[in-house]
Amino acid sequence: MTSDIRVDGARLWDSIMAMAEIGATANGGSHRLTLSDEDKAARDLFASWCADAGLSLTIDEMGDMFARRAGAEDDRAPVGMGSHLDTQPYGGKFDGVFGVLAGLEVIRTLNDHSINTIAPLEVVNWTNEEGARFAPAMLASGVYGGVFELDWAQSRRAVDSGATVLDELKRIGYHGDASVRDHEFSAFFECHIEQGPILDAGGISVGVVDTAQGFRWYDISLEGFAQHTGSTPMVGRRNALLGMARVVQAVDDIAQEHAPLARGTVGSQVEVGPGSRNIIPGRVDFTVDMRHPSAETLAAMDAALREVCAEAAAEIGLNLSLEQISYTAPVAFDENCVAAVKKACEQLDVSHQYITSGAGHDACYVAERVPTAMLFAPCKDGISHHESESAEPADLEAVCNVLLHAALDVAGVVN
Amino acid sequence: MTSDIRVDGARLWDSIMAMAEIGATANGGSHRLTLSDEDKAARDLFASWCADAGLSLTIDEMGDMFARRAGAEDDRAPVGMGSHLDTQPYGGKFDGVFGVLAGLEVIRTLNDHSINTIAPLEVVNWTNEEGARFAPAMLASGVYGGVFELDWAQSRRAVDSGATVLDELKRIGYHGDASVRDHEFSAFFECHIEQGPILDAGGISVGVVDTAQGFRWYDISLEGFAQHTGSTPMVGRRNALLGMARVVQAVDDIAQEHAPLARGTVGSQVEVGPGSRNIIPGRVDFTVDMRHPSAETLAAMDAALREVCAEAAAEIGLNLSLEQISYTAPVAFDENCVAAVKKACEQLDVSHQYITSGAGHDACYVAERVPTAMLFAPCKDGISHHESESAEPADLEAVCNVLLHAALDVAGVVN
Repeated sequence: MTSDIRVDGARLWDSIMAMAEIGATANGGSHRLTLSDEDKAARDLFASWCADAGLSLTIDEMGDMFARRAGAEDDRAPVGMGSHLDTQPYGGKFDGVFGVLAGLEVIRTLNDHSINTIAPLEVVNWTNEEGARFAPAMLASGVYGGVFELDWAQSRRAVDSGATVLDELKRIGYHGDASVRDHEFSAFFECHIEQGPILDAGGISVGVVDTAQGFRWYDISLEGFAQHTGSTPMVGRRNALLGMARVVQAVDDIAQEHAPLARGTVGSQVEVGPGSRNIIPGRVDFTVDMRHPSAETLAAMDAALREVCAEAAAEIGLNLSLEQISYTAPVAFDENCVAAVKKACEQLDVSHQYITSGAGHDACYVAERVPTAMLFAPCKDGISHHESESAEPADLEAVCNVLLHAALDVAGVVN
Repeated sequence: MTSDIRVDGARLWDSIMAMAEIGATANGGSHRLTLSDEDKAARDLFASWCADAGLSLTIDEMGDMFARRAGAEDDRAPVGMGSHLDTQPYGGKFDGVFGVLAGLEVIRTLNDHSINTIAPLEVVNWTNEEGARFAPAMLASGVYGGVFELDWAQSRRAVDSGATVLDELKRIGYHGDASVRDHEFSAFFECHIEQGPILDAGGISVGVVDTAQGFRWYDISLEGFAQHTGSTPMVGRRNALLGMARVVQAVDDIAQEHAPLARGTVGSQVEVGPGSRNIIPGRVDFTVDMRHPSAETLAAMDAALREVCAEAAAEIGLNLSLEQISYTAPVAFDENCVAAVKKACEQLDVSHQYITSGAGHDACYVAERVPTAMLFAPCKDGISHHESESAEPADLEAVCNVLLHAALDVAGVVN
């Protein structure tokens, strides 16, 4: 019975640990920036594993890697499974890597049991999910999803050397000739660590990701008047920091009003001037990050933010500059794909819950074109983008088993 | 009649403008850091004017300059009048300079009218009031007042070259041999621009300074947890910036509760970490400045601040570090000296009001030992420590006339 087969959790874990050796950091993380020598080494290792598993590899013009296992009806569009192998600077071992190697483990398991699927399967490594060496993040999946133009994406420059994506793809030998957008999938699944604390706190093994937050990012400046803290009366002060304080509290309040899915944060990128303890803050520059899986709610949060900023500025006599610098629309993942994940969770009897992705992922852009869903594994204390990022082997195995059965469900099995 | 004599306002103004030429900045200010070549040039000019006025100059071990006009009873302690000739980096033309040259103008006026006082008079230039090149501020007057030790003060190092105060005093030829603390005054008057907006806004020519704010300075840190702004639920966040926002608002509220004399400010020296728009602030370091002319009220404000900080930290789950890094006691200026100033205002029929000094001044430390008062002149929009610092000739003249008659009142006139 196909329903009885299970992945090899130890093999999955060992693969993740082997990959983590490439760019391993002193404190147990990985430092494998996009299109660096370490990224090349990671790609080479992944390619060798794919070859060992009998997969045929296609590389496209963005360096995306598609490792294909033929299906019984091989002209059908494949079911994709994957994520990314690049990391944040001094990042963790699991972010992205788990999603790619879970896909590979599914293939290996099918090979072990000589199970043939009707649609082909593909394991995918998307280029530059992290955006740390080349901004923006999710660059190649964004080209795939039609969000970015190929030429523009290839011309992004590295923050270290100034080399372009295309330069670096060629340098490390991963500039393929396949068209990015001509690649078709019948469905796509991405496994990822949650990067938040919900599953870990709840003791839940699998997050069935049905939506991803839309988000709006803002740059805000408040300009008042820098005066002496001692000789300037309280009345008539134009204290820019007092204005920001009200916005900080209000942003938190706005998100709380739309609990539990909303998020609202004044980020940790704040400048206060002129920079003296006995001068009243004359200017503050700060950022706001608002998220919600409903575009309408997010718009309401936007309106509330603008009102609060205008009110604080008017009350304190500040000049307000508020610019929304980016908008990412919410994603509702594909009903059928999500249902396949949910069904697999139930069949396998693993603890699971619906969850909203708070971060952006390759799957969010892939979902622009392809029926897509995501599966989250818990990570310790929700910590991610950090060397101390940690996940339990049993949880990763559970998520990988759910991926296996959801993929089989969608791809179909030859009886 | 002595009561009819008046200072020469044009001469006072011309002297201030001549002094401003030394270290003049492109935008109309002065850049004359303590014990720099410019400070030496300013001292030399002042000394030449004093010699022209027939004064005898004494220089003490901190470089303080005392230019003496003999009295009829010359063994009486002199009545001092002065302030400082050093400026902030790219500072204004009036801060300090006005106080020294107002004293000199009083002497010149007495010379013009051949008026002899019973007690001697002295014009004083205190070394390093600003504290910009050598911390702390009011260094030499602090030694005079017994607040700082001489050796410690002489060993302070310049932020630019690392040279000590003593090195630089010797270099520019202003290391005198007179003992700092053996110098006696029977009374001391310091004229200064207000450095606040009260007189300017009220159209008042003379501020009769009866008190100076005590102040408490704090270094505060709040430590929370830096997490992803998207994947971290609102509940359970440990947002350090949210804690700071509550303290910023509360510090303002505390000062408003003790209006009109209280001041409370989170200063413009703020660090927020780790410094990314999509990471919840994990740590904030900021400063608080609380002021009030009553030590008791200031203590109550201190208690309220501590309570608010503890409350915010507890509510948000932050680690609080709060250190009071300095305490300057409030100053109540001498009743008789203040009365002499007030009486002179009335006799001269100039608009005046009692006012509290919000900033520290040499007179605050001199007041530790000597009956002292201050006189404030309005400055435009309260702006100071800035090249655009501005004052009206008529106001400076009015304040100088009040100084003249207050000093004569205290020193006594030979009929």
